[in-house]
Amino acid sequence: MRYELYYWTGIQGRGEFVRLALEDAAADYDDVARQHGDQAMNGFLDGSHGGALPFAPPFLKVGRLVIAQVANILQYLGPRLDLVPDSEARRLYANQLQLTLADLVAEIHDSHHPIASSLYYEDQRAEAKRRARHLRSERLPKFLGYFEQALELGGGRCVLREHSYVDLSLFQLMAGLDYAYPNAMRRLRPRLPRLYALAQRVAERPRIAAYLASPRRLAFNEDGIFRHYPELDDPD
Amino acid sequence: MRYELYYWTGIQGRGEFVRLALEDAAADYDDVARQHGDQAMNGFLDGSHGGALPFAPPFLKVGRLVIAQVANILQYLGPRLDLVPDSEARRLYANQLQLTLADLVAEIHDSHHPIASSLYYEDQRAEAKRRARHLRSERLPKFLGYFEQALELGGGRCVLREHSYVDLSLFQLMAGLDYAYPNAMRRLRPRLPRLYALAQRVAERPRIAAYLASPRRLAFNEDGIFRHYPELDDPD
Repeated sequence: MRYELYYWTGIQGRGEFVRLALEDAAADYDDVARQHGDQAMNGFLDGSHGGALPFAPPFLKVGRLVIAQVANILQYLGPRLDLVPDSEARRLYANQLQLTLADLVAEIHDSHHPIASSLYYEDQRAEAKRRARHLRSERLPKFLGYFEQALELGGGRCVLREHSYVDLSLFQLMAGLDYAYPNAMRRLRPRLPRLYALAQRVAERPRIAAYLASPRRLAFNEDGIFRHYPELDDPD
Repeated sequence: MRYELYYWTGIQGRGEFVRLALEDAAADYDDVARQHGDQAMNGFLDGSHGGALPFAPPFLKVGRLVIAQVANILQYLGPRLDLVPDSEARRLYANQLQLTLADLVAEIHDSHHPIASSLYYEDQRAEAKRRARHLRSERLPKFLGYFEQALELGGGRCVLREHSYVDLSLFQLMAGLDYAYPNAMRRLRPRLPRLYALAQRVAERPRIAAYLASPRRLAFNEDGIFRHYPELDDPD
């Protein structure tokens, strides 16, 4: 099966959670907008393509199916790429964990855009400083502490007792946070031994290591979700 | 099958999206915290219960299964309560629409709490005014316009061509927005004929009408997601 991934060029963004699953499984896929430009997505987003209407990228085209929303795409891909356990209970839990991770990703985005995505960061900097302080002191400890506990309950190495797309997304989350909030994460690190070990395990998987070293892996930057603005981080 | 719903007492909140599905299907369910208090949720949230660890309510207990995250719960219940079409493509679309609705619900929450959930509204009122203005002028037109278009593409009456849990959630969304932002919604209404017709159709379903008239349906209030602060709405 050939997959077509559609996502904005120039950033890792939410598309990266899907890309990591496709790369880890050595799936046969096209990164369509990177090959043909962002306008290749227009017909899907304006409804002229027919079928399911995406609200926003990323979306995945598989034959005639069009699937949007990261957790929905990963839930679809999981069994097909052998990236989720077989049991219904574990699959429900995988989806629950992925949705919780998506909630945190939205909060991380809003830490630099607390007023509106349509405004520049510079036009909401005062509010961002205030929101980022709460993200660092309350939300990151709460969410990451939750994932650390879920890992512990799962045996410590994989959040679902076996490798899954959720582990890949947790790797991306930790990589993004280390980039955006290095000082805050350095302080949290002693409380998150399992999450950091998981991130390292994922980074060392041969296909992920090859992907991360390839030009297909874009660098984090200040147009994406995980942005490094030193004034939003803890002081050194 | 007997379902146990766990959600904070005193508000409709995110639990209401699940409650509406259970009520519409006349499912056999206990609203556990309403019967036994919020502390009935503690053992699940602290991990001592075992099994899937919820990050937050609502969660549903079904036999030994514990399922959290609204879209995940509804996806589980959909086939069992005959509230989702049979085809895989439609079920994926149902989940995608529900996740997009969840994204909007989070933005609506953040319109009165743009800095931190842990702070009082009064301590982030200035930022809330700014964010709510963008919600009214940009985000509500974009999201509700998207759902209106999805309804049109689906034939106009039900977003998935047949009644589903997504329709029930769209009803709740519109009811909440009419409560929280009556002036803004009055201005948007002419552009949303299908969404308003859907909301009315759902409200008139016999079991939903009976539920809405019962004491089980709490009133909207300023502790929930949909809050009416006149200063955040459009002027009269």
